[in-house]
Amino acid sequence: MDRHAELLPRNFSLRVDSSRASTPSNGVEFRDRIIVKKFGGTSVGSIERIEHVAALVARERAQGRLPVVVASAMSGETNRLVALGNQIDPSYRGPAYDMLVASGEQVSIALIVIALAKLGVPAKPLLAYQLGIETDSVYSKARIKSIRTKELEATLVAGVVPVIAGFQGVDEEYNITTLGRGGSDTSAVAVAAALQLGACEIYTDVPAVFSADPRLVPKAREIPRLSFEEMMEMASLGSKVLHVRSVEIGAKHGVRIHVRHTFQDREGTWIVPEGEIMENPVVSAVTHDAATVVFKLAPIPGETAFIAKLFSVLSEKGVSVDIISQSQLERGYRLAFSVTAEDEPLVKNVLAAFLPSEVKVETLNDVAKISTVGVGMRNHPGVAARFFSVLADKGIQVQLVTTSEIKISAIIDRDRLDDAARALHSEFSLDI
Amino acid sequence: MDRHAELLPRNFSLRVDSSRASTPSNGVEFRDRIIVKKFGGTSVGSIERIEHVAALVARERAQGRLPVVVASAMSGETNRLVALGNQIDPSYRGPAYDMLVASGEQVSIALIVIALAKLGVPAKPLLAYQLGIETDSVYSKARIKSIRTKELEATLVAGVVPVIAGFQGVDEEYNITTLGRGGSDTSAVAVAAALQLGACEIYTDVPAVFSADPRLVPKAREIPRLSFEEMMEMASLGSKVLHVRSVEIGAKHGVRIHVRHTFQDREGTWIVPEGEIMENPVVSAVTHDAATVVFKLAPIPGETAFIAKLFSVLSEKGVSVDIISQSQLERGYRLAFSVTAEDEPLVKNVLAAFLPSEVKVETLNDVAKISTVGVGMRNHPGVAARFFSVLADKGIQVQLVTTSEIKISAIIDRDRLDDAARALHSEFSLDI
Repeated sequence: MDRHAELLPRNFSLRVDSSRASTPSNGVEFRDRIIVKKFGGTSVGSIERIEHVAALVARERAQGRLPVVVASAMSGETNRLVALGNQIDPSYRGPAYDMLVASGEQVSIALIVIALAKLGVPAKPLLAYQLGIETDSVYSKARIKSIRTKELEATLVAGVVPVIAGFQGVDEEYNITTLGRGGSDTSAVAVAAALQLGACEIYTDVPAVFSADPRLVPKAREIPRLSFEEMMEMASLGSKVLHVRSVEIGAKHGVRIHVRHTFQDREGTWIVPEGEIMENPVVSAVTHDAATVVFKLAPIPGETAFIAKLFSVLSEKGVSVDIISQSQLERGYRLAFSVTAEDEPLVKNVLAAFLPSEVKVETLNDVAKISTVGVGMRNHPGVAARFFSVLADKGIQVQLVTTSEIKISAIIDRDRLDDAARALHSEFSLDI
Repeated sequence: MDRHAELLPRNFSLRVDSSRASTPSNGVEFRDRIIVKKFGGTSVGSIERIEHVAALVARERAQGRLPVVVASAMSGETNRLVALGNQIDPSYRGPAYDMLVASGEQVSIALIVIALAKLGVPAKPLLAYQLGIETDSVYSKARIKSIRTKELEATLVAGVVPVIAGFQGVDEEYNITTLGRGGSDTSAVAVAAALQLGACEIYTDVPAVFSADPRLVPKAREIPRLSFEEMMEMASLGSKVLHVRSVEIGAKHGVRIHVRHTFQDREGTWIVPEGEIMENPVVSAVTHDAATVVFKLAPIPGETAFIAKLFSVLSEKGVSVDIISQSQLERGYRLAFSVTAEDEPLVKNVLAAFLPSEVKVETLNDVAKISTVGVGMRNHPGVAARFFSVLADKGIQVQLVTTSEIKISAIIDRDRLDDAARALHSEFSLDI
């Protein structure tokens, strides 16, 4: 277990069951030829693109490799499905929601298999229940517990390309679960981990991970190598390139992740163990998340029990609370916390049911989170001071703050996000 | 086994496994309360309609019944999915095709469950793999072999409404299969048979089975009761109201089928054993099928072996040949046969690969099949004479003919279909 594992939640465990796999006698060479290739929604966003993906897979196979494909739903499809469900009841969460949204991947893997067949490549579409991608039962945010590799290895041994539906799993009762938006990355890295591979390819619509979102920061640069730890922070902090859980699994199982462009035949960003990176800048990237909402509650009782109960109820409903701050008022306390904008209706429901009527709730919608991330921050004190100086110089007010060994995050007004991102990117010498 | 069973194919068998079911001690009463309700594509064609269906199910449940819902894909959805696949390769058939088109039902049952939840009715979406709806592996035309009732009965016992994806099954290897267009009817009747029920409700967008298609024959009337045997013929002959296999299963297992309108609260047509109908007209209905194609091959060798081989190759590809005729030419023979228009590309592929180059193939696309059906035909000779006289009087040319004890079918020019249908409907005293 490498050092990144300590960042992983305690209950993380990915059981690998390949005991019954019938790998050929030259098992090592066989495994070395397997390559997991994950294609995101834009990569399979049209019939033309699906045929491009099939051609890419066919070429790889012609070169003697054994591709395993993991695919997302066609771009726009998951949103369409979510909207259908929301038309009936936007607050519903449960097995039907996951079954609904998981259908998009079923369509895209079927189409990829048809496109491969057209090229003469035998392929098989595989859903989570067929592959035994077992998760917990936290619908719409499920976590993978184990993957059987028997079917997968048998398919590969038969010379057939497995084309796996990303994003979905099944719980103990074989109900469909989903892993949260972006979860196909996690499916791919978990499949690579289960197959005991050292790497996994994530094909997407950007050529690499950037030092900031180029739409916000025109001087952003591509990052050739990033540590798992940094990427995990960036994914948690709003970078949309990778699903955070995929990076956790990559770190724990030593699966290096290669983020690259589907339609450009060149290297992108490698996410690797920190020890494999020679030199780190102080800050590796500036990350933002515009989909943030802050709730301010006052006055509330000061007892920890009250606050603990509130956060435990939120957690039961599947809300991940991000930054929390508490401050004393003349009478009682003020509690402020941020959540992802998607969870706003859920939080409002919980607060309405939980809070005594005298507690006033203020919701801040026009905010965003800006962060700097870098393992180099460990050895360079004073980063926080520079971070806040930059924002102060620009007259940007900070609502909430949180820091870790390798990141600083602040909630600011959303209309100052561009300014803040550019100034921080420049301050930490990341500009091209 | 009633007399209709002799019409069933020899290999038909629907194993009913309810041995391990934990039905409550008042098992008989429990079973009497179960009612299978199947909703077609137009019945779930919009969010509003899905909410109507949920209200209908909730009302039934409030009256103490135990509804089991079986649903089709939202109208238009299966066509959309088929079109996606066809954009890549219209000739592809295999597991990926079935997985593709089966996704539509996954969406509709999830939405129905969300709509039921909104009304406070606990419900569970169930896919074929969860329910053990086992079929053979004839992709896109699979036949149900058995249904486990354990999950279903457990769900009912728990007070939860099972909402089952129609149209789909799984084969022995747990790949998704589909039952052919309209196959959700078959899912519903098979579920009712597995639960050993005496009836099944099929909700659709027409109020009943008509004596002819009212769009062709304005004087068509509703039929209150039809025998299984007649409905089987009508479904085979182009009536779109019920999937033919659903009627076979109903006949074999004594599941009466009630065809009724989703949005009109009144009785429609009951499909029942012939013995339950007091008096039969000579002809019960005039049925047509505009989606027919005739192939004419000449000259071909006269040996039965050649023709047998051709039809066996077509059958292997999943083509059902309908009417066949052979006639002698000066040199060799002419073979003509009709198939459903959907199979035209498949037939063309088979013929191109199979036939010697000297055989000329003529394809007639502008044809249709017109039929009269009625168990009364058994006791009334001369129906065929009247049938052909009517067509002759109208100057309508007959390309191919076939008859059975209870039906006469002819292939005619498609532009004479309306004339033929109206004239036959009038001749056999079916006009309102």
